[in-house]
Amino acid sequence: MRELEKRIQQDGVLYPGNVVKVDTFLNHQIDVSLMQNMAREFANHFKEKPITKVFTIEASGISLATLTAAELNVPCVFAKKAKSINLGDDVYSTDIVSYTHKNTYEVIVAKYVLHPEDQILIIDDFLANGCALNGLIELVEAAGAHIQGIGVAIEKGFQPGGASLRARGYDLLSLAIIDEVDEQTNAITFRAQD
Amino acid sequence: MRELEKRIQQDGVLYPGNVVKVDTFLNHQIDVSLMQNMAREFANHFKEKPITKVFTIEASGISLATLTAAELNVPCVFAKKAKSINLGDDVYSTDIVSYTHKNTYEVIVAKYVLHPEDQILIIDDFLANGCALNGLIELVEAAGAHIQGIGVAIEKGFQPGGASLRARGYDLLSLAIIDEVDEQTNAITFRAQD
Repeated sequence: MRELEKRIQQDGVLYPGNVVKVDTFLNHQIDVSLMQNMAREFANHFKEKPITKVFTIEASGISLATLTAAELNVPCVFAKKAKSINLGDDVYSTDIVSYTHKNTYEVIVAKYVLHPEDQILIIDDFLANGCALNGLIELVEAAGAHIQGIGVAIEKGFQPGGASLRARGYDLLSLAIIDEVDEQTNAITFRAQD
Repeated sequence: MRELEKRIQQDGVLYPGNVVKVDTFLNHQIDVSLMQNMAREFANHFKEKPITKVFTIEASGISLATLTAAELNVPCVFAKKAKSINLGDDVYSTDIVSYTHKNTYEVIVAKYVLHPEDQILIIDDFLANGCALNGLIELVEAAGAHIQGIGVAIEKGFQPGGASLRARGYDLLSLAIIDEVDEQTNAITFRAQD
């Protein structure tokens, strides 16, 4: 998606360890207009699928998932990162490794919001090693629901998550795929996409 | 807002300690259509104000804040609950007490997304004691920005947060104000509003 790539070029900031900071427009401050266009790209790509719910993980996937759900006219569910005293024990649960925060955290979703008949579109802001998305896939499978597709704002193409998900047969749409970053020159190279 | 009150009556679940669980439509699974109508109520109420940004806190305020920002055509910023290694030290910070989770957590916002010239609309899903909203107010004030209003989905009118914010002069719109809950009969009494 050219608009997103241009914005990453313009406002993304590179940090050591191949970190691409996009928190002025994507995951701390949100350019809602840009994000609505991104949601429309997802809705357009997945419009033939019988999606019943959009599923994401707190916190930075929620904006994009909400706007995508609005486009598709279905509810949105977000998995929670910590055990809330309000959610009870009636949950599916899995552990996710975070390379960003260098820890492992438990992710849960209430059993009463994911059902076997659900056709799920998973949405998240970033895909690198795929740990978060694999956690979401596990939760959907635990519910016996079906995954119709995965939509990601930014994929780091030099990390293995995207290739692995495609090899497993998932319909994965990444709106921008970064193939290379050069901290010296601040250059970002995107993969050519249709 | 009658649509929200009816939904709380229909799908809200009462738990001991005056807990009103609304996670099948508001803060775990999200009825995006309902939430768009709520966002329109906020946009309509605050439309004469020169709002430049919608400000909320992760995670459950993000959906409503994003949709409200979309209605007002401004960016959305969400404060983060934990120190991210990506956010750096250039942040405003405050501590918030959580009665729900029975702990205190640090909340931060990057200095480069809140500016003195910003006119802020604060949005959150729940208002009870006002701890989270007071934390957000502190962050806005630390940035030297101005608060134009506060929009909340559900206020617990039998707890002091709402009355305190109104006494301090804030333009606070709560879409549903619960004045009384009765766990025995599962009855919820709403405050009459215009």
